[in-house]
Amino acid sequence: MARGTATLEVLDETAADGVVERRVLLRTGEAEVPGLHWLPTDPRPSHPTVCMGHGGFQHKRVDNVLALARQLVVDLGVGVVALDAPEHGERESDPGASERTLAALATGDRDARRRAFGREARAAMAARAEAHVAEWAALLDALQQDPRWADGPFGWWGVSMGTTHGLPLTATDDRIAAAVFGLNALRPGDERWETQARAVTVPVLFLTQWDDELMTREASLALWDALGSQDKTLHVNPGRHVEVPRFERRASVDHLGRHLL
Amino acid sequence: MARGTATLEVLDETAADGVVERRVLLRTGEAEVPGLHWLPTDPRPSHPTVCMGHGGFQHKRVDNVLALARQLVVDLGVGVVALDAPEHGERESDPGASERTLAALATGDRDARRRAFGREARAAMAARAEAHVAEWAALLDALQQDPRWADGPFGWWGVSMGTTHGLPLTATDDRIAAAVFGLNALRPGDERWETQARAVTVPVLFLTQWDDELMTREASLALWDALGSQDKTLHVNPGRHVEVPRFERRASVDHLGRHLL
Repeated sequence: MARGTATLEVLDETAADGVVERRVLLRTGEAEVPGLHWLPTDPRPSHPTVCMGHGGFQHKRVDNVLALARQLVVDLGVGVVALDAPEHGERESDPGASERTLAALATGDRDARRRAFGREARAAMAARAEAHVAEWAALLDALQQDPRWADGPFGWWGVSMGTTHGLPLTATDDRIAAAVFGLNALRPGDERWETQARAVTVPVLFLTQWDDELMTREASLALWDALGSQDKTLHVNPGRHVEVPRFERRASVDHLGRHLL
Repeated sequence: MARGTATLEVLDETAADGVVERRVLLRTGEAEVPGLHWLPTDPRPSHPTVCMGHGGFQHKRVDNVLALARQLVVDLGVGVVALDAPEHGERESDPGASERTLAALATGDRDARRRAFGREARAAMAARAEAHVAEWAALLDALQQDPRWADGPFGWWGVSMGTTHGLPLTATDDRIAAAVFGLNALRPGDERWETQARAVTVPVLFLTQWDDELMTREASLALWDALGSQDKTLHVNPGRHVEVPRFERRASVDHLGRHLL
C-alpha cells in the first residue's frame, strides 16, 4: 500500500473532562490496528499529534498511557494516538496471555522471566517491532489526509517496548519532530540498535530507572549516549522498571510542548 | 555567636518587574557577608526562602543566579537569598582576581588551570567552604527572627561550588527541606564527602553535564548515587561545565516549588 493510502475509521466517540476519546481502526492494507485518538473538546483547526507507544504486556489504554494522554490534550491542546502493538491488547492471538505473563512475572518465577525476556522472546519482539513501526508510519499517512493533522508536527512518547518501536520510527521517519524514550538499553555488540539510535537527531527526553531489574545501568546510559541528537536530556530516578515517578509526566509534557507547539 | 543572634541589615531596596531586590549585610559575629534578598513586590505574610549558592569565580549577582532568582520569585512567590562566598564578589582580598582567573582559563592556559583546580586550590576551597556553610546557617538564623521567614521552609539551589557549600549545609541543617545540586563529583576515596552526601535525605534534583571538562562521568554519577535521599532525580545533558541548558531552570523551579509550597 503506497504512502498516504492507509485509512483511519472512527468507530465511536465519547467526551469527558475536556477530552474527546475516539476508538479508531487503522487499515494499512496488511493489518487492521485498533487504536485510540484523544482530542481537545474544543480543538484548534490545526494542531500537533503525539504518538504514544505502550509497554510490553500492556495495551493502548493502560493507566499510564491514558493519564499522560489526557494531560497532553488538556495542558497542550494537542491530539494523542495510541495503537495496540502486535500480540497486545485487542490483537492478542491468545487472549489474556499478557495478563497471565504479568501475573507469573509478579511471583518472581524464573521460567516466566525467561519466556518473557529471553533470547527467543527478544527475537520475536524484534520481528513484531519491524511490522509495528510500519503501522505507525501508516498511521501518520492516514492522519495527514485530514487538514487538521496534515502539517503535524508529530511527537513520540513511549518507554520500554514503546522505545523499541518509537526509536526506529523516529530514526527513519522525518515526520517525528521530538520524542520521549526510556527504560531501554544498548547491549554491547548490538550494532543495528546502535545505528538506529545514532540516526535519531530530534530533541529527546530519555527516562531511566537506576535500579531497573531488566537492564544494567551501563547499558541504559549507553543507549542515551548513542542517541545522535544534539538536544537530548536524561532523567534518572531511583527504583525499578515500572517505578518511574509521577512527576516525570510533567517533564514529558514540558518536553513535548517545548518542541511541538 | 549563638544560633539566632546573627543579624541581617538591609542596605537598600529597589523594585522592577514584580521583584524587590534588597542589598543586605549578614553579620555573623565572625564575618560581614554581603548578600542579596529578592522578594515578591506583593509578598504573602509568610513564605518559603530559597538559598542560592553561586559557582567558583562567580558572585551573588552573576547572570544565572539573577535570572533563576527572579523566576523563583515570580513563578513561586518565594523569597531568594544569595551571598558572596569567601574570596568571591565583594569579598575578594585581591579585587578582580576571579575575573582574571576566568580570563586565563578561557585561553586554555595549563598553569591557570592548575592554579584554579589543582590540589592546593581544592584544599583552600574546602577550608573556605567550612566557614561559608556556617555563614549560611547564620543567614537562616537571621531570617528566622522575622515572622515572615521564621517557619521556612527553606530550599537550596547551587551547582559546582554551590554544591560544595550547599551539600554540607543540607546534610547538617535540618531547616533545608529540598535542594538542587550538580556539576560536582565524588572522587574515589573521598570518604568525608561521601559521608556528607549520604547524610542528605531531602528531595534532590541533581544536574550533570555529560561532557564536563572538570570531572569524569563516573565521579559525577558516584556523587548522585551516594546521596541518601529516597526522592532524588538526576538530569544529564550534553555539553561542558558551564553549558547547562536554559530549560533546566524550569526543572529547578518545578522541583523547589513541588517541595517548598
